[in-house]
Amino acid sequence: MPFAPLKNDSFLRACWRQATDHTPIWLMRQAGRYLPEYVATRSRAGSFMGLATNVDYATEVTLQPLERFPLDAAILFSDILTVPDAMGLGLSFEAGEGPRFARTTRDEASILALEVPDMDKLRYVFDAVTSIRRALQGKVPLIGFSGSPWTLACYMVEGGGSSDYRQVKTLMYSHPDLMHRLLQVNADAVAAYLNAQIDAGAQAVMVFDSWGGVLADGAFQAFSLAYTQRVLSQLKRNGADGQPVPRIVFTKGGGIWLDDMRALQCEVLGVDWTVDLARARAQVGEGANGKALQGNLDPNVLFAPPAQIESEVAKVLASFGTPHMDASAPGPTHIFNLGHGISQFTPPEHVEALVAAVHAQSRALRVKS
Amino acid sequence: MPFAPLKNDSFLRACWRQATDHTPIWLMRQAGRYLPEYVATRSRAGSFMGLATNVDYATEVTLQPLERFPLDAAILFSDILTVPDAMGLGLSFEAGEGPRFARTTRDEASILALEVPDMDKLRYVFDAVTSIRRALQGKVPLIGFSGSPWTLACYMVEGGGSSDYRQVKTLMYSHPDLMHRLLQVNADAVAAYLNAQIDAGAQAVMVFDSWGGVLADGAFQAFSLAYTQRVLSQLKRNGADGQPVPRIVFTKGGGIWLDDMRALQCEVLGVDWTVDLARARAQVGEGANGKALQGNLDPNVLFAPPAQIESEVAKVLASFGTPHMDASAPGPTHIFNLGHGISQFTPPEHVEALVAAVHAQSRALRVKS
Repeated sequence: MPFAPLKNDSFLRACWRQATDHTPIWLMRQAGRYLPEYVATRSRAGSFMGLATNVDYATEVTLQPLERFPLDAAILFSDILTVPDAMGLGLSFEAGEGPRFARTTRDEASILALEVPDMDKLRYVFDAVTSIRRALQGKVPLIGFSGSPWTLACYMVEGGGSSDYRQVKTLMYSHPDLMHRLLQVNADAVAAYLNAQIDAGAQAVMVFDSWGGVLADGAFQAFSLAYTQRVLSQLKRNGADGQPVPRIVFTKGGGIWLDDMRALQCEVLGVDWTVDLARARAQVGEGANGKALQGNLDPNVLFAPPAQIESEVAKVLASFGTPHMDASAPGPTHIFNLGHGISQFTPPEHVEALVAAVHAQSRALRVKS
Repeated sequence: MPFAPLKNDSFLRACWRQATDHTPIWLMRQAGRYLPEYVATRSRAGSFMGLATNVDYATEVTLQPLERFPLDAAILFSDILTVPDAMGLGLSFEAGEGPRFARTTRDEASILALEVPDMDKLRYVFDAVTSIRRALQGKVPLIGFSGSPWTLACYMVEGGGSSDYRQVKTLMYSHPDLMHRLLQVNADAVAAYLNAQIDAGAQAVMVFDSWGGVLADGAFQAFSLAYTQRVLSQLKRNGADGQPVPRIVFTKGGGIWLDDMRALQCEVLGVDWTVDLARARAQVGEGANGKALQGNLDPNVLFAPPAQIESEVAKVLASFGTPHMDASAPGPTHIFNLGHGISQFTPPEHVEALVAAVHAQSRALRVKS
């Protein structure tokens, strides 16, 4: 069964650096705990993994934010740690604690035993992609995603979140060969995982390098960026419907390395709020091989009243600068987003104000220009 | 009683961008829990504040790392939160929990009530400075320090550490006027505090902007950098012995804003491990108004064996590049440090390997050049 034709292509056009009549917006973690309807569905599912592994629930929560807000893209509801879970590490989410793995991969034996998992173990993700794509009925495009090889390695070695990354960095500095072996397996697994999402109907894919920014200069390029590139180089270029699939890379805390990221085989670079979009545009956004930029409002702005949200939106749009309006050629484009996932404490009506402000202000900028 | 003449001036010379025969090294939090003798003294003191507020204990622990390692500077043993404690916020340290304030300053009434505290309440700090300076007997210079106005504000508004800075950023985005008022009081208090340390015998002063890096571009300049500058502009230029006192500013996660920091009235900029020292040197280290650079080894390197520590030291020294060796004029200089405080889990013998490697390798580089 073919998928419905796409009605709102502003996000995909911006990924390809094509002119749009407004700046498209979506939000990292837009299907999440700040929405009471999400909390209700999660409660019915019993647990986070109960939610993520059930196709109907995953479809339902992915669509929830789109029913409230005129967002320009949907993103698969899942977790970045599904791949190591499929490797047999035993993922769980304890209440208020974040993800935990039952088994860590810190020693030579456990690292040498790692293999690219059978993608059948992740069938629930690909089924969710197809189900969500159908349920969207072409309203907006669907983004698939994965954690980056380095970010997955952080959780696999630490066994969960960390404040100092002591275990994973001890491994990296003491046994770089083992770290490279772990990252190779992760990269090939992530590539297979994203390709299967593309086959299932994902219209764009995003690599979340959530912990790339904790690395030292030099180590970032060798242990994170190189393996993100190893993923990108293996990705299918066209989706289930034959359409080209843009690739987005987001490194939290990676703004200092934008020059290095210019060479990545991807169309879009996500940046966090520490980045001056004007400078990023000058570094990577212009020219024939430029990247689209995605970001970068501080999610904490959404705790302020709507008037302040509107003025912070204006600052982000002004920071990116004059919108690209030449329909005959690609140019620098901006996809509005937060610089990190939305907080569970965000009032939903403030998200409404944000989306309305981005749409209205970015349209007005194009009229003025 | 005058202080003893200084025997090892390599750190101060490097601060002033003068040539030295080796790259001086000291470590943030060098007097700390990784040293068993520190743990023993703290145990006698009963608590962290019991240690910090007792002149004899503070002197003892400040000198401990210097008895083990040939470090090129000492730093006052204290905490960055002494100033808000003196404002009446009630600082305590619960075991394994980090600092807590009994009272937060989130609302208009508590912010308008804030005042620069009577420096007599911080007499224990200034007495410790004088005691340590005497006990050093001119072995190495003594660095005094404070938290930055923004970093203090983070703790004052949050009431302690935070993972998302939700309260302080909500205040900043919702009521910027109140935030500015809070930061003005903090800046004037920090300036008075550092000046009193200078009068008491500090030979250099450092502002720790530990949380500047969590701010968005634009907000960093307005809410952190501007108030660090407000501190710097009020600092005494000469110490108790008439010697000029260099000023160091360290913003964790601030590498992306080095161009903005170039204008700060300080001699040294500290940088964390995400920064490429070659690029930082090109940005802020050269020219008549250049800054010395301090940093930037990832503290996690110290968990690796000595051979790896030595090779990571070589990378940091190579990243900074050719040492400045012209004795007739100032030039780009480097002070070796970590990019963050040393971890409590560090083996002391690895610190020994680090200091030896920095001294030996940096001397060899000067012979070769």
